[in-house]
Amino acid sequence: MKAAVFEGPGRIVWRDVPDPAVKDPGDAVVRVDVVTICGTDLHILKGDVPEVTPGRVLGHEAVGTVVETGRDVRTVRPGDRVLISCISACGRCRFCREGRCGQCRGGGGWVLGHLVDGTQAEYVRVPFADLSVHPLPSAVDSYDAVLLADIFPTSYEVGVLNGRVQPADTVVVVGAGPIGLAAIATARLYSPGRIIAVDLAESRLAAARALGADATVTAEEGPEQLVEDLTDGLGADVAMEAVGVPEAFEMCTRMVRPGGRIANIGVHGKPAVLHLEDLWIKDVTITTGLVDTSSTPMLLRMMAAGRLPAAELVTHRFELGQMEEAYDVFARAGDTGALKVALGGPQHTAVQVTETPDAA
Amino acid sequence: MKAAVFEGPGRIVWRDVPDPAVKDPGDAVVRVDVVTICGTDLHILKGDVPEVTPGRVLGHEAVGTVVETGRDVRTVRPGDRVLISCISACGRCRFCREGRCGQCRGGGGWVLGHLVDGTQAEYVRVPFADLSVHPLPSAVDSYDAVLLADIFPTSYEVGVLNGRVQPADTVVVVGAGPIGLAAIATARLYSPGRIIAVDLAESRLAAARALGADATVTAEEGPEQLVEDLTDGLGADVAMEAVGVPEAFEMCTRMVRPGGRIANIGVHGKPAVLHLEDLWIKDVTITTGLVDTSSTPMLLRMMAAGRLPAAELVTHRFELGQMEEAYDVFARAGDTGALKVALGGPQHTAVQVTETPDAA
Amino acid sequence: MKAAVFEGPGRIVWRDVPDPAVKDPGDAVVRVDVVTICGTDLHILKGDVPEVTPGRVLGHEAVGTVVETGRDVRTVRPGDRVLISCISACGRCRFCREGRCGQCRGGGGWVLGHLVDGTQAEYVRVPFADLSVHPLPSAVDSYDAVLLADIFPTSYEVGVLNGRVQPADTVVVVGAGPIGLAAIATARLYSPGRIIAVDLAESRLAAARALGADATVTAEEGPEQLVEDLTDGLGADVAMEAVGVPEAFEMCTRMVRPGGRIANIGVHGKPAVLHLEDLWIKDVTITTGLVDTSSTPMLLRMMAAGRLPAAELVTHRFELGQMEEAYDVFARAGDTGALKVALGGPQHTAVQVTETPDAA
Amino acid sequence: MKAAVFEGPGRIVWRDVPDPAVKDPGDAVVRVDVVTICGTDLHILKGDVPEVTPGRVLGHEAVGTVVETGRDVRTVRPGDRVLISCISACGRCRFCREGRCGQCRGGGGWVLGHLVDGTQAEYVRVPFADLSVHPLPSAVDSYDAVLLADIFPTSYEVGVLNGRVQPADTVVVVGAGPIGLAAIATARLYSPGRIIAVDLAESRLAAARALGADATVTAEEGPEQLVEDLTDGLGADVAMEAVGVPEAFEMCTRMVRPGGRIANIGVHGKPAVLHLEDLWIKDVTITTGLVDTSSTPMLLRMMAAGRLPAAELVTHRFELGQMEEAYDVFARAGDTGALKVALGGPQHTAVQVTETPDAA
Repeated sequence: MKAAVFEGPGRIVWRDVPDPAVKDPGDAVVRVDVVTICGTDLHILKGDVPEVTPGRVLGHEAVGTVVETGRDVRTVRPGDRVLISCISACGRCRFCREGRCGQCRGGGGWVLGHLVDGTQAEYVRVPFADLSVHPLPSAVDSYDAVLLADIFPTSYEVGVLNGRVQPADTVVVVGAGPIGLAAIATARLYSPGRIIAVDLAESRLAAARALGADATVTAEEGPEQLVEDLTDGLGADVAMEAVGVPEAFEMCTRMVRPGGRIANIGVHGKPAVLHLEDLWIKDVTITTGLVDTSSTPMLLRMMAAGRLPAAELVTHRFELGQMEEAYDVFARAGDTGALKVALGGPQHTAVQVTETPDAA
Repeated sequence: MKAAVFEGPGRIVWRDVPDPAVKDPGDAVVRVDVVTICGTDLHILKGDVPEVTPGRVLGHEAVGTVVETGRDVRTVRPGDRVLISCISACGRCRFCREGRCGQCRGGGGWVLGHLVDGTQAEYVRVPFADLSVHPLPSAVDSYDAVLLADIFPTSYEVGVLNGRVQPADTVVVVGAGPIGLAAIATARLYSPGRIIAVDLAESRLAAARALGADATVTAEEGPEQLVEDLTDGLGADVAMEAVGVPEAFEMCTRMVRPGGRIANIGVHGKPAVLHLEDLWIKDVTITTGLVDTSSTPMLLRMMAAGRLPAAELVTHRFELGQMEEAYDVFARAGDTGALKVALGGPQHTAVQVTETPDAA
Repeated sequence: MKAAVFEGPGRIVWRDVPDPAVKDPGDAVVRVDVVTICGTDLHILKGDVPEVTPGRVLGHEAVGTVVETGRDVRTVRPGDRVLISCISACGRCRFCREGRCGQCRGGGGWVLGHLVDGTQAEYVRVPFADLSVHPLPSAVDSYDAVLLADIFPTSYEVGVLNGRVQPADTVVVVGAGPIGLAAIATARLYSPGRIIAVDLAESRLAAARALGADATVTAEEGPEQLVEDLTDGLGADVAMEAVGVPEAFEMCTRMVRPGGRIANIGVHGKPAVLHLEDLWIKDVTITTGLVDTSSTPMLLRMMAAGRLPAAELVTHRFELGQMEEAYDVFARAGDTGALKVALGGPQHTAVQVTETPDAA
Repeated sequence: MKAAVFEGPGRIVWRDVPDPAVKDPGDAVVRVDVVTICGTDLHILKGDVPEVTPGRVLGHEAVGTVVETGRDVRTVRPGDRVLISCISACGRCRFCREGRCGQCRGGGGWVLGHLVDGTQAEYVRVPFADLSVHPLPSAVDSYDAVLLADIFPTSYEVGVLNGRVQPADTVVVVGAGPIGLAAIATARLYSPGRIIAVDLAESRLAAARALGADATVTAEEGPEQLVEDLTDGLGADVAMEAVGVPEAFEMCTRMVRPGGRIANIGVHGKPAVLHLEDLWIKDVTITTGLVDTSSTPMLLRMMAAGRLPAAELVTHRFELGQMEEAYDVFARAGDTGALKVALGGPQHTAVQVTETPDAA
């Protein structure tokens, strides 16, 4: 089969690799119907994630069709259309039993496209299939469902739940890329009073408004002053970091009110400065986290009921074979306006959602 | 009357000042029977708390006897023996209504010995008396009760409750001064499996063991390795910072397990480095806070039932008039072995608890 | 002044009574601008609430204008337009300090129109005014705001919060009177997947649909079967009792899923049968409660932002002097279609919302 | 092998049955080393649990040694000494994924000695072994560990956690049989201020005091008055029903304070009367539940650390072959003073703990 192979920093190649097969009785092999590229894949490509070694097939988000299952798989069978979650769960370790599958100690956690071959391929072997894939109801489109593999549960669990968003809250989301936008969309499930989105790019702030942000502001326009003005000087109830740079995190710590919550969602490569001389007295809660995907069934019910916006987040569609081009468009998001790019197998690529700027 | 007056950095003087009187209908004037000195008072003395201006009477912890009440005070009357809480609560602002009186916006919060004259005096005016003093049952000794003014509720609320200590948890307390020791004592209310105390001074670790620490370790002996060994490499469930320096906070962030909690109790004067590049994926929760004293009634019930150790924490007793000497002994804790020093009015100073090292 | 005086079972008379005045330094006297009648007032009228003695002015919901304040009132002053909450809070007792003001032990709780004269009058004395009235922003209409005196916080706190409504939940509300309708409206703040309303009257179910119920069913149509069908036989996540009769409560206990919550909001006069032989193994949580009004500030912010439906709930408006007629229309809700009836002073009665059936 | 076979109401026979074998790849076959009899077994014997059909081997609590595992079992292997939990968990269904394994929909839940053959036998087949047995550290004695199969996690989860016991709380436990006693022992992990035990039998109240009850009272001595006296008329913070009869449950509803919690642990065969006419206004929370055994790992750590009393609960030991005699002693607890009776295989029966009254 063909797959997107990491061949060292800066090199992703769509090329022939051996077909995957069931290795463990809990495995499923799934034909990939729709797959996306994650910001984390770009980190890998830059060489920031040393555990990913050359030869690895990347990708940890997909919707597909089960083609083979190991003898112990009980909940899905060949022919089922399934969501492949970014988190695999052994189901037996302490963390899985406590619902914290992102921290799985039994061979799961984030392994796809990281420690084992991933979903940016025609087929993928999914370990611990019973707990790592979700059968999809027919009401849910595959291009929508693929967003439940990572960005929706990540934004919801690590941003909205950790941040304990409540009705009438003022919520600030710093970073309006796919994760920040999904945080805006899922924060709305709790009826905050006001969502303020911060980004460098006006185009992303437009997407934020489309997904429900009540106010938007670029970093240059003074987000801290805006939050202060809108909250009578008190600060935001919840500030979410959805960028992954120290400056964004530190901005969150300045914008939060006494008693407020800072939920870090971003993937960071460098330390931040924590101004404990100001914060020690301020009753703040700071959380970090990897998604556990415990919310995926709930989010899937909401999506099936038409209650989660998804279409707005996929700006570009490609055929699976256009993987290298898709990486290029996604990597140059500043130029291309890409949010999520989705690649579909032959049966899934009839529709071109938006004109790509390149094509124009 | 006599009082301990801050006369600028480095200068605390026990001298005559005007007697306090009821100014607001919610005030009470209380004769001070037992008072202590807090580490924060030493910060003030160093000039670290610029809001405290020369001429201010210091002190925010005391037990005393009500001598006069404003016309609106309903819950105490002259003659009542009361605990004076370090937090005054207006009871009307948003934060007080939410039980977060430490963040009071209505003129309360930490004001005694900070923004208004405090308790290190023969008499003190207590604002918002109905919500800021607690009548004491006869079963509770004044020298024990004074620890409920600040260190017990602070350690319990900001350390134990914020850190969500649970049965069987491994709890690390970095810093075994009065606050750290009170954190050990109140963490035990939740039956953790193991409490590990860390300090520079072996004498304080001995006090930690006396108060219930199961293991103790000096900073030089490698606390991080000990925690790793005792937890099979996983890390502590809860790490509490009870020092107030960046190194101690950063040590906590390295010792906590995935999914664990870091509760900062220390008063900080400098920023710390937050290693988000390690922590972003680790599901940690970091909390800060000023005490609200919402737990004071509960802690008072526990103390009345003999369920809170207190005597171990008061190492030195003085007469009220020995204020300057008491400050000296407390400031030189490394030499004197002082934990809490308590000063009593004439009716409260018969007993010398321990020999001071100086006296030896 | 004129007021609605309870003169014994079945007799409510709009007649002259002495003007109220400040009695306690914490009191405010408020001119009533808009007032409503509560189902509880009908219970009183039936003689079901023996603590209410003849001569009592009824009413515990109103919006008005402060005309006089006691010397200790700090947060409102004459001329302020305020919401008068159904709960008065002493602010000093254990329950008030814990935010459970409905259980106030210091002279507050539900006292207006119950133990002291109430709001169905031209003027009312409000005890503990600082904690019992809420200044209204100009954006909020008095006819909307009056619903925040009781039914919105009651439904939200006792129904939605106690029932722990979560995104995607199936919520059943048994009873679609004003309280049930407000429960539907406030449950929506948490984005449940589906709200099912049950009532005897089709007209009330129409109101339920207008306020956001996704499915409605009369008692005869088999609500239990509908819930079973819609939840694949599992049952509802949350069932709220909003009637106050044993049958409705018992229906809730049959409709809830394993692990679900039953939130009783109704005022009951008789015991119910609790089928522990079925429920003991089912992991259910049953809650009861009187409103604390701790959510009123949040609900007020939501209303000011146009995020709470209110107009749909007030079906009839009267002048204040038409009190007896308003009681009659409200008492015969089955015939008149009344949900909430509101009575306004001269400055507030220009608009006739709906034709009353009587008038037709 | 030999096993205790239910042969219809009133008839339990220790007789030959076929040896169990692995049927499903997730099964383990375990040699029973120590087993106990549960109050639920007596219910079955009375014919109260119609799903249990004649021919069924009873028992759902044991410690044993693994002798064979199915091909998919990963976490235990032959030779391991394990605790067999009363709850089997499929690990794949919605309820298991949410940590609510007692409500397992995938073939688990309470099945041993109920829907499949149980532990009162020389050998037992345990389904879903990876999630249903717990390897035992050598520090834990088998006669202690067997109490972790059911009564400790049941009392802790369904009583203490559902009842949200907090430091300084007044806790009433109605019923001082094994479950009530284990509730007392595990409530103490949260340092309640006072535990009051209620029972008919003075001998059980003596056991309650030995396990940490601060006050005990027989039903005739007026438990409600005692609770009122000890709480200044307020009532208990938490009341636990540990009997399984309507009278005990109804007593709990009268003894709880406003804002308090009633945790039902008892297995009920009849409905109770719920006095909603008193309770609707009282802010009470009533919970029911079957154990999920999610707390078993934590309780095991506490037991290994010597922090859970266990020896006091096993009053009688027998050899496995004395099953019928053990049932008789346990069934006549009023005469024999039996709390838990434990039966051991040949290698586990050297010690006679207490003289049985029969033997005297």
